[in-house]
Amino acid sequence: MTSSSSSLHCFLHPKAIAFVGATERSVWSNAALASLRTLGYAGQLYPVNRRGGSFHGMAAATSAEAIGEPVDTALLMVPADALDDALADLQRAGIGNAVLLSSGFAEAGEEGRERQRQLTAKARSRGLRILGPNCLGFVNFVDRSAVWTASLREPLPAGTLGIVSQSGALAGQLSFMAQVHGIGLSRMVSTGNESDIDIAEVIDYLVDDEHTRSIAVFAETVRDPQRFAAAAERALAVAKPIVVLKMGSSEITAQAAQAHTGSLVGDDRVFDAMCQRLGLMRVRSIEDLVFTAAFASMTGPFAAGGLAAVSMSGGMCEIFAERAEEEGLALTPLAPATEAALREVLPGYGTPQNPLDVTGAAMLEPELFGNALEALVRDPALGAAIVVADVPNAPANDTPLNRAVLAQVARGLAASPVPAIVCSHYVMQVSERSRELIAETGIRHIACGIHHAMSAAGAVRRWSETLRRRQGAQGVAAAVPATPPAQPLRSERETLAWLSQRGVPVVPVRLSRSADEAARFADELSGPVVLKIASAQIAHKTEVGGVALNLQGADAVRAAWQAMDARVRAARPEAEIDGILVAPMRQGGLELFVGTVRDPQWGPALAVGLGGIWVEALRDTSLRLLPVTPAEVKDMLAELRGARLLDGWRGAPAADRDAIAEAVAAIGNAALALGPELVSLEVNPLRVDGRTVEALDALAVWGAAG
Amino acid sequence: MTSSSSSLHCFLHPKAIAFVGATERSVWSNAALASLRTLGYAGQLYPVNRRGGSFHGMAAATSAEAIGEPVDTALLMVPADALDDALADLQRAGIGNAVLLSSGFAEAGEEGRERQRQLTAKARSRGLRILGPNCLGFVNFVDRSAVWTASLREPLPAGTLGIVSQSGALAGQLSFMAQVHGIGLSRMVSTGNESDIDIAEVIDYLVDDEHTRSIAVFAETVRDPQRFAAAAERALAVAKPIVVLKMGSSEITAQAAQAHTGSLVGDDRVFDAMCQRLGLMRVRSIEDLVFTAAFASMTGPFAAGGLAAVSMSGGMCEIFAERAEEEGLALTPLAPATEAALREVLPGYGTPQNPLDVTGAAMLEPELFGNALEALVRDPALGAAIVVADVPNAPANDTPLNRAVLAQVARGLAASPVPAIVCSHYVMQVSERSRELIAETGIRHIACGIHHAMSAAGAVRRWSETLRRRQGAQGVAAAVPATPPAQPLRSERETLAWLSQRGVPVVPVRLSRSADEAARFADELSGPVVLKIASAQIAHKTEVGGVALNLQGADAVRAAWQAMDARVRAARPEAEIDGILVAPMRQGGLELFVGTVRDPQWGPALAVGLGGIWVEALRDTSLRLLPVTPAEVKDMLAELRGARLLDGWRGAPAADRDAIAEAVAAIGNAALALGPELVSLEVNPLRVDGRTVEALDALAVWGAAG
Repeated sequence: MTSSSSSLHCFLHPKAIAFVGATERSVWSNAALASLRTLGYAGQLYPVNRRGGSFHGMAAATSAEAIGEPVDTALLMVPADALDDALADLQRAGIGNAVLLSSGFAEAGEEGRERQRQLTAKARSRGLRILGPNCLGFVNFVDRSAVWTASLREPLPAGTLGIVSQSGALAGQLSFMAQVHGIGLSRMVSTGNESDIDIAEVIDYLVDDEHTRSIAVFAETVRDPQRFAAAAERALAVAKPIVVLKMGSSEITAQAAQAHTGSLVGDDRVFDAMCQRLGLMRVRSIEDLVFTAAFASMTGPFAAGGLAAVSMSGGMCEIFAERAEEEGLALTPLAPATEAALREVLPGYGTPQNPLDVTGAAMLEPELFGNALEALVRDPALGAAIVVADVPNAPANDTPLNRAVLAQVARGLAASPVPAIVCSHYVMQVSERSRELIAETGIRHIACGIHHAMSAAGAVRRWSETLRRRQGAQGVAAAVPATPPAQPLRSERETLAWLSQRGVPVVPVRLSRSADEAARFADELSGPVVLKIASAQIAHKTEVGGVALNLQGADAVRAAWQAMDARVRAARPEAEIDGILVAPMRQGGLELFVGTVRDPQWGPALAVGLGGIWVEALRDTSLRLLPVTPAEVKDMLAELRGARLLDGWRGAPAADRDAIAEAVAAIGNAALALGPELVSLEVNPLRVDGRTVEALDALAVWGAAG
Repeated sequence: MTSSSSSLHCFLHPKAIAFVGATERSVWSNAALASLRTLGYAGQLYPVNRRGGSFHGMAAATSAEAIGEPVDTALLMVPADALDDALADLQRAGIGNAVLLSSGFAEAGEEGRERQRQLTAKARSRGLRILGPNCLGFVNFVDRSAVWTASLREPLPAGTLGIVSQSGALAGQLSFMAQVHGIGLSRMVSTGNESDIDIAEVIDYLVDDEHTRSIAVFAETVRDPQRFAAAAERALAVAKPIVVLKMGSSEITAQAAQAHTGSLVGDDRVFDAMCQRLGLMRVRSIEDLVFTAAFASMTGPFAAGGLAAVSMSGGMCEIFAERAEEEGLALTPLAPATEAALREVLPGYGTPQNPLDVTGAAMLEPELFGNALEALVRDPALGAAIVVADVPNAPANDTPLNRAVLAQVARGLAASPVPAIVCSHYVMQVSERSRELIAETGIRHIACGIHHAMSAAGAVRRWSETLRRRQGAQGVAAAVPATPPAQPLRSERETLAWLSQRGVPVVPVRLSRSADEAARFADELSGPVVLKIASAQIAHKTEVGGVALNLQGADAVRAAWQAMDARVRAARPEAEIDGILVAPMRQGGLELFVGTVRDPQWGPALAVGLGGIWVEALRDTSLRLLPVTPAEVKDMLAELRGARLLDGWRGAPAADRDAIAEAVAAIGNAALALGPELVSLEVNPLRVDGRTVEALDALAVWGAAG
């Protein structure tokens, strides 16, 4: 347990609570009291009001200090101008934790931000942990305590889902939704403006919380990416699922956007890459947030292998098949032994396949369903199974037949060696009666319907693969220490030389100071050559006529050299020109684009795409946080829309994906070695011709301090 | 009303029903009776059983004929070997409509298909309309009658959603789902194997049905595309929304797949194109099927303009914004007058923008919500508005505050000049109490949550645009009569000539019979030329060395001519060679791919994409059914992932999209004019260089009969 965890423990498990500023005229005071009553809070509650008086029959202390008893957590409901006094009072009272409801802080412009900075500083100086401001508080469903200033709805059975949300209103909606779907909560924390406690700290706490088996996060922004990533790492280490509904987008710095990669990557693709790296399941709806978190806590990680899907209707099986394809879930073909066993069980007109339609005959003879599932889940190629069957939730569907079907589903899945879950046909409520039936049969059931269940299954499969990769021998790339060169790389030549030192294959390139020297170099290369102007001040060589292609013979090289030298000097008289580079002319093959960016939140990331028009017009790139292993680069290549070009195109030899992967991973490592001043390192193109992989051009972009 | 409609009317509105083969030992008999009782059926019911006896207290007639009273619709539950007799009995009894439950027909292999063919023929000869076999029947919720052999769940209020489903089990699930969401049904028909009545006929019927305001369709296949399309056309003409959950994929003929276009288009993209043309809203989940149909019936078509979204929470507004972007919905910026009016109403920390956060202050002062909505919906740029607010559905949320908020939402939207709908925060059930409150407040409310509501809004917006386009002057392309040439176009030259006749700009091309003739043609063209082998037997010219590029001067042309002639004759000695084509060499510019296919179900369609590697490796094409207007082609171009290449790339001039659109529409019309024997017409490339658009190569593929 980390120190922040133990600090939050007392905050979120109060046995004595003070409502500072409590008055019966306040909606918030009354709501907070109602929350405690709904939960059946058994601890102490102390109203505090400067004027004394009483609050719902309780005598109010005139200050926190005046309570005279230990208090774990205070709810602060005082006007802005009384906040300083209130904080001092809490310190004198020895209270270390406060929920601050008020708005008008960082969400309200620059003045508000200044107010919040002052609040943070004062609270820290008084040894106070703050939840908020501009939050609704928290609920501890397990231990039946809360400082929650909005409504709670009964029944409120405790469960294993932890909710963390920057938006208090949204947290409330998530709890309502979980509730009607029979998904019990462990803790719910709304963090508001996060002047102190942020979502990362709460997640970190929940990772250690034995009552929380999965975590649902709603985030508008991530204030402490490092802590957030560290908490996610710890969750991954103990295979505790985290599902994230994240709004907005991370911002690439303007500097990085000057390089191509920044504009290509943009938006929140870096956050996606972070989620992928750390096994966070990112979703796009409130429904998927709650359902996926609940689903994952029920199934745990899938085993390696495919998914089996089962229904009593052909139509549902088709829906399963289509959703599986959309989610990239493999519905594994069944082994011959499984098919044989199913043939024994199914009616003559049934077909032993995956998805499996146990047919309407199961409505006449429910045992058939159980028998079919027993046979199916033994298939050695399965990693998980999903069965669609409703749990009765109302008198209208609480029939003996429906109960019999459910019992058979339970029997059939009881001995499943892989995670097996039962989902409803469509999004349904889970009533008290449903909960009874679920408990009786012992099934894992989620009433989210096939559509959302398959979204969840897709997310859990990807998370499971991340877990397996982490557990595998060569799964995760090793960190690369920064060992930058003495001078920042200012030119193409220096950058290529650096890449070559770091194991990236690069085209041989030489710097000529005269036309004659260039001609001599060209002669030594024996074949057509390229001339490129060499100047740290000229990033876009083509625009100033600084590139000449396909020059054959000494005369042509000499003439081109002189023309280029004159042309570029005329176009850019201020530029310091080192000379002109001579390199062999490469033709044919494929061009890849490889570029790194440094995201201000998530650090260095690497994009790979097919070069030229592909990357520019189509933005067809795959992105990962650095470092990457060659195996990860191969996954990236497979994600490209134009991936099939790598397999040989119109008679071209297939590209050596292993060689590409090695080169790209080495480029990523080279960028990391250049240290934090590097904004972007681009290799464009990385040429691939069968087994030959070679960086033809490279550009390093440095930050202001570089 | 069409004749099929009137024929189905009697079928689906029975006042007298016979259960042929009724017995208390049959699950189906009992279920059918239970359905009638659940509905409160007030008509006649006649059990029929060869052996007589009684069925739940009713005396069974020994034959349908023996009933001696008129019967509208019969449920046939007889063994396969008694079916012939039963059909004859129905004819003698003067019964014209029968539901056939039994499986073992077309779904059960070739034998079953043969059985079904015989059934169809016999039923037709006896003047019988058949629903099924392998179906569960139908329910008429409005008139409280049914032949439905599965369970129905109370309460069953009638409503305006019509359900048509090939899968009976799925229809049942759709009805359950609609029910718990307070969505009333008008009619539900399961069509099963469709030996006679198919989904198209039922849709056509529902288009005329005044009680049905929207139609939800589940289809595994479309058996009569022409009738289906005609029904969709009629629905569009009266703006009755149809939502479709369609499985599987249409099949492109093997012949069409030989041409590129077939393999590019594949699968069910032609069905998508049909949906787009006819304003069918295609969805991907059970939830979206029911919710979108209900949503559309509540809003009707959106007005032209953007969408406004409103919530009481910033988090929800962010979710609105993200979903709007995903669905291509424009959240229109507000007019200054609207902003000013909202500023009057909102608290100081609120922001008048779209999506609009009325802020938590609305929880303290619900009037604020009503006032804000009143101000918002008057914005002139709006086409529709959506507000998130839950309708209480249980004692836990049926609070005075929640009711007050709802009343204010109703007040604010009451005078909205554009369609305005209220959705729940997440998928919720709609209880009796919710229905009361909805009726009291008069709001249009759908408890599908923001996520599904925005899917529905996206679908309704697209449908609304199709409606507007239809109503517009030059919205729909005119049909092009088939006027094919006397001989099918067998060669590139003939095809280009045909295209030119039909108004497509084509490259000038001449057929040379000798090297000297080619040299003379080249000389007249003054500039580099291309030589291409001309033979109807050689479709892939490059593979046999039948293309020579960039030839300059008479000698080069002559030499290339002779070499090509020899090379191709050696490679393809059996091919009849007409000569060698001479055309000017074009360089630079962009290449487009334009191809038509004839889908066996939906007829001719046209694909456009960026040529070469784009279309081949990326399958980046847009597809429409033919004919297309130039305006539609411009939409197609905008859909291409590589669309920005058309705007000028790396200094290239922007492509003239109008000129492209004219040329592509003309290619489509040329293909239609070639008549139904044409399998595919491809122009590849259609070269575009600024304002110049030119077909450089073309290929017509003909069917066996062509």
